[in-house]
Amino acid sequence: MHKSDIALIGLAVMGQNLALNMAGKGLSVTVYNRTWEKTEAFMTGPAKGASIIAAMDIKACAASLKTPRIIFLMVKAGGAVDALLDEILPHLEPGDIVMDGGNSHYEDTAARVLRLRDAGISFLGVGVSGGEKGALLGPSIMPGGPREAWERVAPILGAIAARTRDGRPCTGYMGRDGAGHFVKMVHNGIEYAVMQILAEAHDLLLRGHGMEASAQADLFDEWNSGKCASYLLEITADVLRRRDAISDAPILDVILDAAGSKGTGLWTSRSALTLGVPATTITAAVEARMLSGMRKERQLAAPLLPGPRANPLPVDRERLGRALFQATLTAYAQGFALMGAAEKAWEWGLDMAEIARVWQEGCIVRAAFLDDIVHAFTSQRTLENLLLAPVFDAPLASGHGALRQTVALAVEHGVPVPALSAALAYYDGLRSARLPASLIQAQRDYFGAHGFERLDMPGTFHGPWEEE
Amino acid sequence: MHKSDIALIGLAVMGQNLALNMAGKGLSVTVYNRTWEKTEAFMTGPAKGASIIAAMDIKACAASLKTPRIIFLMVKAGGAVDALLDEILPHLEPGDIVMDGGNSHYEDTAARVLRLRDAGISFLGVGVSGGEKGALLGPSIMPGGPREAWERVAPILGAIAARTRDGRPCTGYMGRDGAGHFVKMVHNGIEYAVMQILAEAHDLLLRGHGMEASAQADLFDEWNSGKCASYLLEITADVLRRRDAISDAPILDVILDAAGSKGTGLWTSRSALTLGVPATTITAAVEARMLSGMRKERQLAAPLLPGPRANPLPVDRERLGRALFQATLTAYAQGFALMGAAEKAWEWGLDMAEIARVWQEGCIVRAAFLDDIVHAFTSQRTLENLLLAPVFDAPLASGHGALRQTVALAVEHGVPVPALSAALAYYDGLRSARLPASLIQAQRDYFGAHGFERLDMPGTFHGPWEEE
Repeated sequence: MHKSDIALIGLAVMGQNLALNMAGKGLSVTVYNRTWEKTEAFMTGPAKGASIIAAMDIKACAASLKTPRIIFLMVKAGGAVDALLDEILPHLEPGDIVMDGGNSHYEDTAARVLRLRDAGISFLGVGVSGGEKGALLGPSIMPGGPREAWERVAPILGAIAARTRDGRPCTGYMGRDGAGHFVKMVHNGIEYAVMQILAEAHDLLLRGHGMEASAQADLFDEWNSGKCASYLLEITADVLRRRDAISDAPILDVILDAAGSKGTGLWTSRSALTLGVPATTITAAVEARMLSGMRKERQLAAPLLPGPRANPLPVDRERLGRALFQATLTAYAQGFALMGAAEKAWEWGLDMAEIARVWQEGCIVRAAFLDDIVHAFTSQRTLENLLLAPVFDAPLASGHGALRQTVALAVEHGVPVPALSAALAYYDGLRSARLPASLIQAQRDYFGAHGFERLDMPGTFHGPWEEE
Repeated sequence: MHKSDIALIGLAVMGQNLALNMAGKGLSVTVYNRTWEKTEAFMTGPAKGASIIAAMDIKACAASLKTPRIIFLMVKAGGAVDALLDEILPHLEPGDIVMDGGNSHYEDTAARVLRLRDAGISFLGVGVSGGEKGALLGPSIMPGGPREAWERVAPILGAIAARTRDGRPCTGYMGRDGAGHFVKMVHNGIEYAVMQILAEAHDLLLRGHGMEASAQADLFDEWNSGKCASYLLEITADVLRRRDAISDAPILDVILDAAGSKGTGLWTSRSALTLGVPATTITAAVEARMLSGMRKERQLAAPLLPGPRANPLPVDRERLGRALFQATLTAYAQGFALMGAAEKAWEWGLDMAEIARVWQEGCIVRAAFLDDIVHAFTSQRTLENLLLAPVFDAPLASGHGALRQTVALAVEHGVPVPALSAALAYYDGLRSARLPASLIQAQRDYFGAHGFERLDMPGTFHGPWEEE
């Protein structure tokens, strides 16, 4: 009997598309889904004619595979992964490999790596980005876990991944334990930040300048060129141009303004806080989604809270574009700083240049300037902060002023720009040789006797507060 | 043999001062400390002549108390509390009460309440704020846990607490489980935010306007009056006036500009993120401390990252004062919103008016406008957000404009104002009946098929993206 190269478990859209992607690359694939109906619909629909076979149960699924087995889980993150592992483990043998392609928390992944290691099974946490289309046509893939296991699946992941212009697959070994899911989590955190930055620009154009959606679409298209081009800019322009099929209004006019989330942005903020990394733009974006969700409270507050008089201003298209780039670059810098701190803390083997390379195509945060980020980290392995890379000297030289003017304008017009403000405050904080934290230290010592350090000599000191 | 009313365990400064406070109020107190030297120094020093006896070990400490026993722990939060509980439990009897006055995490406290309940012991998590002086002269005390136990210790806590102008003690029952420590945590989160707001004002005066410390002190004194008066403003003025004993320079010139923390601000941010509450000003303050701690990186970045030309501006003293008040009020509003969300989630019985009352004197965030906050929550029990209270209509009417101008000025001058910016963005977000989150929902559906809701009809929809 013919045995499959790999099993794909979980046939939601992402799982279906990954299976089709694999089959399209010449792999023989077994698929399994908890409910048979879904499997059947897939087999008689999208999978028709592909080298895909369906398993009716977990046992048959495991039995259909070449050994050592390779199994790719594409199920909802959380308890479903553990439940599935419980089910499948009795049918596996030492040497088999299980990959989890969902958005699992990196701590869960690290725990599963340990748990399965005891059974002789290699567990890989595999970040997959690119959405439905990416899964089908080539996602960016971020695997982490035992390196030997990764080496064995690398040809498969390389075959289905997106490719950079020089033909290299957008996948690579991220590091030990939960490294793959951690990198994917930070990817999503950056995604939250950039989406919020673009939403703030849209709001400024809409409420600050009264610009119509189609004109905005042209502007976003204009910005989406050269070094500033990015997938998120591209789809923003596209979204702005679309009309609602029911009302024929611009689509954004009918969509409820309460942003949902699946938690990876929140995880990024929590991880940043825990590691002591000020990922301020990412966190501002996460908080902005929360505030958007307080829709009832906002309706209540809107007529009650006074704001500035509306006073539409002309748009400086070019300046706003530079401001967006500066803020976006800051979001990436904070994401990479977070991964740098994780590497210092846990020594997984994260390689910033390799991560940036893997993000160049296929994923949601793909952008032309990732070429420069790859270059920045390749040429300077110990780069402290992406904003300090010489390759960004020129954009920062004009970008910071553009961001200042944009934030000042928004603030005066009453348009909330939490992510843009946070990006600018981070930039100005980072370039401050002295910050006013000395006052905070003095206050802490004043009321709590926490002590402070001095600039001019070592040791811990207390202030002269007692004399009062 | 004479038995004591209460035992105080842990003789760091806060513990010593609380013991002295208790003794001064006519309570007989047993003290115990892990190292006898500290006990001895206390007994022969500050405690001399007070109705305080010292115990050499835990057993003697427990034996010295009237039954049912009342024990107040004042030890470092974390494992030390559990270790001490392990030690003391064998010497306790059902009906005894143990209070933890440290900055314990509310989840730990909730777990300890359960653990001790099994042994018939009542555990109370007691937030204590006021620093060393407050502990001695009258702190604000936030007890939570089993209500019956609180009723028994209420007279003691009432005796040692600060008093409001109408003579009521600044303590009251906060709620079940970890409620006391949760309220204290949020208190500290607000404290972080206000300290950062004041530090930003100081920085703006220093770097934006080149104002000397003593002139700044006068200005902070000026602001510290009427409805705007607060303890933190008061000590800021005092700190700005102090000179270093060693160098005779203004004290802030010699203090290292890297703010430390003991984690309660971080916990507040993490709790807010978990509960989905945008406590943006508090989180910005926590992140600002982190950025201040990246001192080496800042020294490296300062000469590399371009900023605006320095161009000192005159200060509008009155406007800056109004801006500070607006931002400070926002920080309190976010803290109370967080407690409101906790109450919705866990139903501890948190009472916003009572919390505000307990904070009126003794604690670090005491401020004149807490009178108005008490009034706001008393007259409107279901108040959605403090910023919507009619009592704040007038300050907000002029405050938001002052905050706008201040943030715009700082942003243009290159002075980082993360907390002021976050406060303003929150205010502008809250008063936005429509936010640009519809774009985010469209993007999420575009690449991830997450679906969106519509403004005009119920249900979940997908966009027309496929037509492209």
